[in-house]
Amino acid sequence: MFSDYKLKEACGICGVFNHKEAANFAYLILYALQHRGQESAGIVSTDKKNFYEYKSTGLVAEVFDKETIKKLKGNVAIGHNRYSTTGDDSFINIQPFTATLSSGNIAIAHNGNLTNTYKLRKSLTTKGAIFNSQSDTEIILHLIAHSKGNIITRLINSLKQIKGAYSLVILTKHSIIGVRDPYGFRPLTIGKMKDTIILSSETCSFELIGAKLLRDVKPGEVVIINDKGITSLQPFKKVEPKQCIFEYVYFARPDSILWEKDVYIVRKRLGELLFQESPVEADVVVPVPDSSVASAIGFAQASGIPFEFGLIRNHYIGRTFIEPKQSIRHFGVKLKFNAVRKFLKGKRVVVVDDSIVRGTTSRKIVKMLKAAGAKEVHLRIASPPIISPCFYGIDTPTRKELIAFSHSVEEIKKYSTADSLSYLSLDGLKKAAEKKENFCYACFTGKYLTEFE
Amino acid sequence: MFSDYKLKEACGICGVFNHKEAANFAYLILYALQHRGQESAGIVSTDKKNFYEYKSTGLVAEVFDKETIKKLKGNVAIGHNRYSTTGDDSFINIQPFTATLSSGNIAIAHNGNLTNTYKLRKSLTTKGAIFNSQSDTEIILHLIAHSKGNIITRLINSLKQIKGAYSLVILTKHSIIGVRDPYGFRPLTIGKMKDTIILSSETCSFELIGAKLLRDVKPGEVVIINDKGITSLQPFKKVEPKQCIFEYVYFARPDSILWEKDVYIVRKRLGELLFQESPVEADVVVPVPDSSVASAIGFAQASGIPFEFGLIRNHYIGRTFIEPKQSIRHFGVKLKFNAVRKFLKGKRVVVVDDSIVRGTTSRKIVKMLKAAGAKEVHLRIASPPIISPCFYGIDTPTRKELIAFSHSVEEIKKYSTADSLSYLSLDGLKKAAEKKENFCYACFTGKYLTEFE
Amino acid sequence: MFSDYKLKEACGICGVFNHKEAANFAYLILYALQHRGQESAGIVSTDKKNFYEYKSTGLVAEVFDKETIKKLKGNVAIGHNRYSTTGDDSFINIQPFTATLSSGNIAIAHNGNLTNTYKLRKSLTTKGAIFNSQSDTEIILHLIAHSKGNIITRLINSLKQIKGAYSLVILTKHSIIGVRDPYGFRPLTIGKMKDTIILSSETCSFELIGAKLLRDVKPGEVVIINDKGITSLQPFKKVEPKQCIFEYVYFARPDSILWEKDVYIVRKRLGELLFQESPVEADVVVPVPDSSVASAIGFAQASGIPFEFGLIRNHYIGRTFIEPKQSIRHFGVKLKFNAVRKFLKGKRVVVVDDSIVRGTTSRKIVKMLKAAGAKEVHLRIASPPIISPCFYGIDTPTRKELIAFSHSVEEIKKYSTADSLSYLSLDGLKKAAEKKENFCYACFTGKYLTEFE
Amino acid sequence: MFSDYKLKEACGICGVFNHKEAANFAYLILYALQHRGQESAGIVSTDKKNFYEYKSTGLVAEVFDKETIKKLKGNVAIGHNRYSTTGDDSFINIQPFTATLSSGNIAIAHNGNLTNTYKLRKSLTTKGAIFNSQSDTEIILHLIAHSKGNIITRLINSLKQIKGAYSLVILTKHSIIGVRDPYGFRPLTIGKMKDTIILSSETCSFELIGAKLLRDVKPGEVVIINDKGITSLQPFKKVEPKQCIFEYVYFARPDSILWEKDVYIVRKRLGELLFQESPVEADVVVPVPDSSVASAIGFAQASGIPFEFGLIRNHYIGRTFIEPKQSIRHFGVKLKFNAVRKFLKGKRVVVVDDSIVRGTTSRKIVKMLKAAGAKEVHLRIASPPIISPCFYGIDTPTRKELIAFSHSVEEIKKYSTADSLSYLSLDGLKKAAEKKENFCYACFTGKYLTEFE
Repeated sequence: MFSDYKLKEACGICGVFNHKEAANFAYLILYALQHRGQESAGIVSTDKKNFYEYKSTGLVAEVFDKETIKKLKGNVAIGHNRYSTTGDDSFINIQPFTATLSSGNIAIAHNGNLTNTYKLRKSLTTKGAIFNSQSDTEIILHLIAHSKGNIITRLINSLKQIKGAYSLVILTKHSIIGVRDPYGFRPLTIGKMKDTIILSSETCSFELIGAKLLRDVKPGEVVIINDKGITSLQPFKKVEPKQCIFEYVYFARPDSILWEKDVYIVRKRLGELLFQESPVEADVVVPVPDSSVASAIGFAQASGIPFEFGLIRNHYIGRTFIEPKQSIRHFGVKLKFNAVRKFLKGKRVVVVDDSIVRGTTSRKIVKMLKAAGAKEVHLRIASPPIISPCFYGIDTPTRKELIAFSHSVEEIKKYSTADSLSYLSLDGLKKAAEKKENFCYACFTGKYLTEFE
Repeated sequence: MFSDYKLKEACGICGVFNHKEAANFAYLILYALQHRGQESAGIVSTDKKNFYEYKSTGLVAEVFDKETIKKLKGNVAIGHNRYSTTGDDSFINIQPFTATLSSGNIAIAHNGNLTNTYKLRKSLTTKGAIFNSQSDTEIILHLIAHSKGNIITRLINSLKQIKGAYSLVILTKHSIIGVRDPYGFRPLTIGKMKDTIILSSETCSFELIGAKLLRDVKPGEVVIINDKGITSLQPFKKVEPKQCIFEYVYFARPDSILWEKDVYIVRKRLGELLFQESPVEADVVVPVPDSSVASAIGFAQASGIPFEFGLIRNHYIGRTFIEPKQSIRHFGVKLKFNAVRKFLKGKRVVVVDDSIVRGTTSRKIVKMLKAAGAKEVHLRIASPPIISPCFYGIDTPTRKELIAFSHSVEEIKKYSTADSLSYLSLDGLKKAAEKKENFCYACFTGKYLTEFE
Repeated sequence: MFSDYKLKEACGICGVFNHKEAANFAYLILYALQHRGQESAGIVSTDKKNFYEYKSTGLVAEVFDKETIKKLKGNVAIGHNRYSTTGDDSFINIQPFTATLSSGNIAIAHNGNLTNTYKLRKSLTTKGAIFNSQSDTEIILHLIAHSKGNIITRLINSLKQIKGAYSLVILTKHSIIGVRDPYGFRPLTIGKMKDTIILSSETCSFELIGAKLLRDVKPGEVVIINDKGITSLQPFKKVEPKQCIFEYVYFARPDSILWEKDVYIVRKRLGELLFQESPVEADVVVPVPDSSVASAIGFAQASGIPFEFGLIRNHYIGRTFIEPKQSIRHFGVKLKFNAVRKFLKGKRVVVVDDSIVRGTTSRKIVKMLKAAGAKEVHLRIASPPIISPCFYGIDTPTRKELIAFSHSVEEIKKYSTADSLSYLSLDGLKKAAEKKENFCYACFTGKYLTEFE
Repeated sequence: MFSDYKLKEACGICGVFNHKEAANFAYLILYALQHRGQESAGIVSTDKKNFYEYKSTGLVAEVFDKETIKKLKGNVAIGHNRYSTTGDDSFINIQPFTATLSSGNIAIAHNGNLTNTYKLRKSLTTKGAIFNSQSDTEIILHLIAHSKGNIITRLINSLKQIKGAYSLVILTKHSIIGVRDPYGFRPLTIGKMKDTIILSSETCSFELIGAKLLRDVKPGEVVIINDKGITSLQPFKKVEPKQCIFEYVYFARPDSILWEKDVYIVRKRLGELLFQESPVEADVVVPVPDSSVASAIGFAQASGIPFEFGLIRNHYIGRTFIEPKQSIRHFGVKLKFNAVRKFLKGKRVVVVDDSIVRGTTSRKIVKMLKAAGAKEVHLRIASPPIISPCFYGIDTPTRKELIAFSHSVEEIKKYSTADSLSYLSLDGLKKAAEKKENFCYACFTGKYLTEFE
């Protein structure tokens, strides 16, 4: 409950082709992708005859143990961990999803959100489809089941019917298939170690297992990995990519190479540009750990103001917390953060955060710093105001709950009790992203790229 | 298993006197002291009639829930979380320990390690004492049970028989009692919020519940907190304090005020002195997060070399991990850390760590940085070589396993594969500690202050 | 493992219409039907808007608790407990099954086994159906989903496509529907208490909740229970019923009224006829408790030989048992039964059992009685030799494992070490059943009534 | 909660000496003694060096698994299962209890109840003893710890200080010791299989593991079993034994040979004498299963009235049951029993039970039989009215709750709604017990044999 001030990534997905410990490697990749979804995890493997599956709620290291991994036989496996975006958090919604089609078994792991689900679900139900979950992903499965031809033909036929954001990793008896939607909203990368091919949402997982980044799956690309190697298809009309800029701002791990850049470097650049746009005189620059550390370092280096780790984060936080009846001021945020007290006394503090969602956390952090003795607190946000929800795979509150939808920067400043507040401009963000036309900025602009049906 | 490269603190202890949500506050304090012990947690409370107790293995947030907290009735409570130093990790060793004495109920929470347990245990068994655990702490309980007089007389009589390190929080039906051994090896502080008095190992827990630091319990002091207020006794002959310097180096949370200083400030100072003693030309200063961040910032600021967060830590790590059969190079350390790759390419990197225990982690981190492209890696350790185990409440490996016991700095450098390695000198450490005569440096010098019986 | 000497019933099913504690009553009925399936249990309820569902593995009293029952809202509920016949024992196979159709939600609980599943499953998969379980029951769901019209039309259309044994309880938003297949293999009865209508596999469940038996659902009948009352449809061509005679012999609880007779009375009659067919001189008649108690009493009364409870059954047996490495003679059967020793010494014992499956248990029981001192042991079986598996909802071993398939009665006698062995004749069984043409005797005759596709 | 109409046995105890699977055999014995205590179970074993212990709440088959049994190393083991008499049901009270004494390790398993605990506990606490449980048994342990000499001297010295009922099995590194108190309230028997010696509360456990009954431990006897064989001591002044008659009436399993008689035969005799004392004209004799089956058979055979199993018992009952809000008449008893309906219609029924505690169950059973159609119901109880609690190891309600303490037989008959009610007379009971002077009848007479301190 105390983590709801952050936007949540929907999912991490992966595939391992041709390794005798395929499931164990999928498990390790999911562990490295844990920041992309902490509610549940699942792996499906195949020995070219049968499919083996294990899924449960919990963190990756809690879900699997030696016994469960052992039962996931075969040289090929795909995996998924999730943060529920659509569908509640019940067991039935845990991915990957599997089905026995007339053409054989299939399993599918999906990161993203479809935007024409209402229409598709209605049409499929009329045809006799029985849905077992509230998940978008099951729609894709039913579309494939109701298509004709071999699995690739069926898949492409199905993809042409869906709209919205989807990076997919699909398992058949003899292949894994990677897909990014034509806009490429969500990431998907290809790695390699010896004769093994890896698909993974992020490259930070490659280091752990000793793989090398080969390349990104391209927007609109279908990549088929089987015994013949890697085959690439481009079944969609080409469109300008709209990759999620928020992966750079907050979601992706700073040690990932995303769309050919170190996420860490992009974030530092956001901090530098933030200083250039909104300089301030101060004694220390303090990050809200861990997500804004790189931006705060960028800000500090650009400004020459010393960087200090003035807010300490408690990483032991569990899922629920027993609140005392007597209200403690800023209880929730205190479970996560604490200020270094004597040190901050009398100082002018720049506190850098990556974004503001509801505003309540910013207010509590500013108050905490002041209670610790800070003379001034200047709030600097390394991205523009979030004014609109995401429909492409990120769990955002409704528009009303986004403080920047209904309040001016001046109003947010007052609410936060900061002595000054500046956001990075949209231009600044685009500058940091370099190939600015390749990105989706909808959460900052409210301009969406696909229809909703 | 992958966390064994760090020395482990034995315990966190606390007490809450006179608050209608005493147990809930004890729980929150234990949560904030979680870094001092992650194996188990327990709380005992009293409503002046009965004692209520709940203990279990696991993290604080896992051990307790609403129901268990609710059953811990009364306005007074004490708590404990632990990392087993003596005694195995079975249920029976979870503290606090309770007993019904002829003078009434008592419960006791202990941070530290006694050094004359063999002798005491033997003598008590001969007198008919039945031990239920392997814990030092039960010895104290039996000494009290075999003493005469009121509880304070019994306690002081018992304390005079024990040697070694002990900070204690004791619960009786009408009071909590705080004790630090004559040398004051382990910390214990007194906090206050309105009419409530708090005892806690560290002040970082005070912020969370809204308490203010009143003062430290002094070495050799017995503090009795009851309805009459706080009474201080000094039953021991005065000796020069020997507070654990390693609390400053690694154990205490950086946001705690320990022995009147911000731990963060002491650590920054360690980094500054480290640079002054062992400067190096480099492009970036990188900490091994989270423990050496402050020292690395100190080093960076003193040297003018940019501070960068070049190693990213994965905080989702669970207790056990399913290792693949195929060995992955540096698997254990990769579960915890990953380097920011493109960014480090071609750079001369200073990596700052707080200490070296076995040396294996340092070696893996240096190799990881080089694999990420670092041109040079200079290892800087913000404390002297650890050459001797601790017998005062810290879980250290045997002397043989301490790399610095049997290897020169040059040999450790070679083993680590770093281009250079420097430790902070003992003088440097004493300088950072300021009142240098007040501290125990035994793990760095091998000179112990008490006998072992 | 030690219970495998008995044939296992597939399932118990129930429905509760129009009671504000519908789910709690369904739970109590399932508890009373526990002997029909001990692997898992599930309940689905509706408040006419939504469906609520809870299912898990385990005994009824373990599966549900106050919280789970509370969440099963609404005045209508259906329930199921099972012993897996088809499909493995994984979570996905636990009934009732639910689906959202274009005409609304539906849930289905099934007792029985279909005989044309291969054909149906293949045909449905070709139409795009995705199966989530290995259960027969899901086929019915898909047939309904692929049919047109209102739910009753769809249901009847689907029933006409399936062959084999099925008693069904179906839940829609506004009704429960009870179905027995045209042959009426498995039972289903209707009960009533005030304004509440109950469906249940057996009447022993009616007493517990205070309901009265109204009547059986007839073979081939579809009973629709909604706010208008009970509507009866007879959509099938009439055939001669083939109710499972084994329900009388072993499955049903002796306190149930099945097909208008006390099961207890039928069983006593089996024992009486068994004596008339195969008399023997003896000192005591001993049942193999609990299933053959009534037959043994019948035998004793007809013969005038005293009835004694010479075998004591241990009811605490758990699911798995740690066998000692050193083999103990007749270990498995000893976990369940023990003989009264001094008492049996020198006696001529008639031991009555309901049936013989593999023969191993009979042998062990005879040996146990002899070890206890019995001078002679005469084995009397209150049904004919089982020579053929059941395909209508009972879990039988393969033909090869049925001792009577490949061995003569004389051979079985020798194997059992009994001094004499007699089975009840098929004619005897038919006589006890009275309306003999109404029953299926396939397990005793090998003559099946439906085709397998 | 629905089983509280029965008196509860305190415990089953056992020991296995000289078998390489000692712990596994102890586990099987405990399983066979499960009827004597269903709350928890524990085993302690020794390999002559160390003690190994595993204890937990639950049924024997739930408490232990392969892994836990495997860890209980060594050729010698003792075990215990319990129904809490003194002490609540918390973990700390689970037996066997272990202690490290100055003379070595010891473990102790106790069946019975001491009557001078208050005095002993107070005296021990004054001497510095710390109690960890509320159990009587810990007192014995502390007495041993505070005694001098070798373990046998210490034990006998301790036994001389305690009063009340105790059968003990004690484990030392090199022996197991069996003890029965001078009056021999609770049973303890010695068995043998090859070179292995067994101690067990009841002989029903011998069959399971293939052991033979050697003899009973005698009242007041201390039996030491070690590598030299079996040594017998008689340290107490001889008194007339007072063995618990209720073991015959209800507690012991009917297949046990207790004090040289088949329990089954004694119970049949109770039924015969009951008929002779209180004949009645009737159509059927029905037992309340399972405990009164033998007595009902005795009654039926003596009277010539047919024995019928007219009440069916549901053995699946779990520990707690979710009661419906709407009260169901006789809900609790219906969870356990159900009547065979058509069969009982119009019949005159004799229902035989072993005893009446509170009277509520008898009333419900009579009503259930009448609701099933019985024309008359005659209640026959195979023991005298219980008018006084047991202080020797049986869990009885307070005197006020015993219906026969405050009500005449006529009043109880009225309350029960039976057409007639007769108890067996005390003389009848004594006659069935044969050596009548050897037994304790305190629950029927209120005359106790030891003082309470």
